[in-house]
Amino acid sequence: MAEPVRVAVTGAAGQIAYNLLFRIASGEIFGKDRPVHLRLLEIPAAMHALQGVVMELEDCNFSPLASIETSDQPERAFDGVNWALLVGSRPRSPGMERSDLIRINGPIFVGQGKALNRAAPDVRVAVVGNPCNTNCLIALNNSDVPPERFSAMMRLDQNRAASLLARRAGQPMGSVTNMVVWGNHSNNQYPDFENARINGKLAPDVIRDETWLREQFVTEIRQRGAMVITIRGSSSSASAANAILCDIHAFSQSTPTNDWFSAAVCSNGEYGVDPGLVFGFPLRSSGQGDWSIVEGIPMSPWAQTQLNKVLDELRHERDVVKDLLR
Amino acid sequence: MAEPVRVAVTGAAGQIAYNLLFRIASGEIFGKDRPVHLRLLEIPAAMHALQGVVMELEDCNFSPLASIETSDQPERAFDGVNWALLVGSRPRSPGMERSDLIRINGPIFVGQGKALNRAAPDVRVAVVGNPCNTNCLIALNNSDVPPERFSAMMRLDQNRAASLLARRAGQPMGSVTNMVVWGNHSNNQYPDFENARINGKLAPDVIRDETWLREQFVTEIRQRGAMVITIRGSSSSASAANAILCDIHAFSQSTPTNDWFSAAVCSNGEYGVDPGLVFGFPLRSSGQGDWSIVEGIPMSPWAQTQLNKVLDELRHERDVVKDLLR
Repeated sequence: MAEPVRVAVTGAAGQIAYNLLFRIASGEIFGKDRPVHLRLLEIPAAMHALQGVVMELEDCNFSPLASIETSDQPERAFDGVNWALLVGSRPRSPGMERSDLIRINGPIFVGQGKALNRAAPDVRVAVVGNPCNTNCLIALNNSDVPPERFSAMMRLDQNRAASLLARRAGQPMGSVTNMVVWGNHSNNQYPDFENARINGKLAPDVIRDETWLREQFVTEIRQRGAMVITIRGSSSSASAANAILCDIHAFSQSTPTNDWFSAAVCSNGEYGVDPGLVFGFPLRSSGQGDWSIVEGIPMSPWAQTQLNKVLDELRHERDVVKDLLR
Repeated sequence: MAEPVRVAVTGAAGQIAYNLLFRIASGEIFGKDRPVHLRLLEIPAAMHALQGVVMELEDCNFSPLASIETSDQPERAFDGVNWALLVGSRPRSPGMERSDLIRINGPIFVGQGKALNRAAPDVRVAVVGNPCNTNCLIALNNSDVPPERFSAMMRLDQNRAASLLARRAGQPMGSVTNMVVWGNHSNNQYPDFENARINGKLAPDVIRDETWLREQFVTEIRQRGAMVITIRGSSSSASAANAILCDIHAFSQSTPTNDWFSAAVCSNGEYGVDPGLVFGFPLRSSGQGDWSIVEGIPMSPWAQTQLNKVLDELRHERDVVKDLLR
């Protein structure tokens, strides 16, 4: 039997968690012979519905599922965990500005950052609840957990971008590598087609349509989440849950040679990004729990303006929550 | 690259499918190197929302996902498929009797039975949409696909029962084997604790509480679906989707020695069940596409009355749809 893994999930009665928890409990991600202990956090109003999710997890009879605990106290949910998946956040109500949303979520992530001091020494924290980059910034600034153990999720954007390039090129899923989405999980993100590769060739050498790449492609990836809401009638849950699993996998396994993956991590000044900002970068993982930002990726002047724009957005978001940082 | 598999899913914009499709497309069930072609069927009113599900499947960038087609025509959705997962059915509205529900769903499964004539010669059909036993009976009576290629799902009941016995015995998930749920996926099903084994020992020798087994256990399994609706506020979707994956696995792999699994299949008269009824039995699969009913399992007089009761229910359901059978 492999070493048990303890996984905290916040927003555990929500839609993303409903697509996530069963895939974790099945052993798909941590291995069929690795016991999984789930620690589910919800707000008091959702604790009853959460009990129904627990019943359904029980009803799957998953061999790896060693225990389930529910709580409305982050200190309790995060106690001793190896992974903390911060999925829950207050959603945007009609008429609410992005800066309002940031202010409303801020205090939640202050509290969760502090509560993460109770986690296992090897904890990795993945922030998914939006605005995830700035929520992650707040949490890591309020925690004694080292900043390199935090990331915010850019993987859904990466997957969307890789999939769209493959489809446009008439190539199968999985044929696109080296897809970095720079900056913020927001409408200003920059999905970098210049450095993406399709079956090993640079995307612009395969899709010879610069207008499509700079305009339709970038716009479609930025607006994909809103399009799904319009068409499906609900926000992306299953694909977001899937991206979380990809994130766990990416940080746990050694990255294939010559490839990279996207996640937002605390900058050390790479690519001119202010140190301390949580910014989407190209990463490589050793598979031993540490990772590094891939440096020296070339960027056209046009791409540099895209990066600068999203950098400005994240600086602004940081200013909005300045009082919550330390 | 392994042989591609073509999988039709009906009710593809519904909640169960939303938890099912992503786990199929990920390669979790058919293998990461086996291309999967999804054929998604919905009613015309749900085709728009289904497009949102397709977008999210694309957004996962799943390597095994070779193609997705959507249709509102079963003849088209079932063309050449190796698996047909009949998840969709009309739900019960307030005040509707079970017999009303059976009559409303009947014509859907007449049409789907006929359309299954377009499937691949090795097709397996799993009926999940309720009332699943009788929907399956109708479909197989209206199809040229051999009856042994049809089953109706008892696996959610099996998983619920195995999990509850394990928890009651203080044993881990996966420690219960030989769990058969006899009869109908309904309130009259009989989850057979007498023959279930916990770590290889007969359950009544481990849980020495016959009253609990005959009363609380049986009742809780029969009412579990209703309890989830009450507590979670929605019906069991993720656990139902998981049971479908277990079903696919059980019929595809050779059953472990001395174990069996539960599914409702067309009776040949085993255990006194009328030939032709679709009844939950203990099965063993060879892993080569064929299976057999495990015969000679002992049953107490009390258990026999449980079996007779659910047999009567299924005979009554058959009478209600007699004009739809051939």
